[in-house]
Amino acid sequence: MLISSRFRTCSWEALCARREGEKESPQSFLNSELFTLTYGALVTQLCKDYENDEDVNKQLDKMGYNIGVRLIEDFLARSNVGRCHDFRETADVIAKIAFKMYLGITPSITNWSPGGDEFSLILENNPLVDFVELPDNHSSLIYSNLLCGVLRGALEMVSQRLLFQ
Amino acid sequence: MLISSRFRTCSWEALCARREGEKESPQSFLNSELFTLTYGALVTQLCKDYENDEDVNKQLDKMGYNIGVRLIEDFLARSNVGRCHDFRETADVIAKIAFKMYLGITPSITNWSPGGDEFSLILENNPLVDFVELPDNHSSLIYSNLLCGVLRGALEMVSQRLLFQ
Repeated sequence: MLISSRFRTCSWEALCARREGEKESPQSFLNSELFTLTYGALVTQLCKDYENDEDVNKQLDKMGYNIGVRLIEDFLARSNVGRCHDFRETADVIAKIAFKMYLGITPSITNWSPGGDEFSLILENNPLVDFVELPDNHSSLIYSNLLCGVLRGALEMVSQRLLFQ
Repeated sequence: MLISSRFRTCSWEALCARREGEKESPQSFLNSELFTLTYGALVTQLCKDYENDEDVNKQLDKMGYNIGVRLIEDFLARSNVGRCHDFRETADVIAKIAFKMYLGITPSITNWSPGGDEFSLILENNPLVDFVELPDNHSSLIYSNLLCGVLRGALEMVSQRLLFQ
């Protein structure tokens, strides 16, 4: 299954500022299967709660946004990533560090726009979709849409914070 | 935060039968924070959906049960655990292998009943409750109740399967 996330930031040069003096919390590593199945329970619950797939997609994005807003702190503290010099470096940080850290995978980066301000992430081994079979009546469901929300929230937080510095 | 799970099985001698010839799927290891925050989103959604904490607890247990029923296959395939000789060994497998594998922690096992058929698991570093602050109006919410359901589902599956062999 392929999933592509396409997004844009206005102030990408501000992404990934290193947080000085941040204390790292202890790391715990785990297998993804419990997370995968718990995520499935979440999507199933939303499909019961909302009448159509579009509303489920919106809710997943919203939940993801709220998660991203909080996760960025953890990411910056753990990753020791410095300020990115351009959007291509930002894409690398997202794909090779962030996705590796939280989902154990490294999506490929493709479809760069001519202006270099848009790209796609292709998740070939997305653990969220393990064991998943979507029923026919959910053809519009973007099952992993939470991830787009997470990226949106995390990116927005970093940009905002630095615009005020 | 302490969480104790107390449960009983009727046919514990049947737990943990080794699955022969099971093919292992590739392992992916990840940090727990995205899972933790996603779990928080799930509990929050259920608190919106159900009127009282008892119903949320029931729903978490039910979801966990459905997860456990599926997760046990993955666990047996990955862990190479053989048949347990008694319930104490079963407790060790749950705490030291299963929890370590899926949550990155090892709960302590306490409060054995005189008959040796009941015990408590104490989760001192439960990653599910990182970042969590429960509002005062959710004093009856058993936040991590999904885990009890997972154990219930997983244990039931193993016992059932062997009772039919």
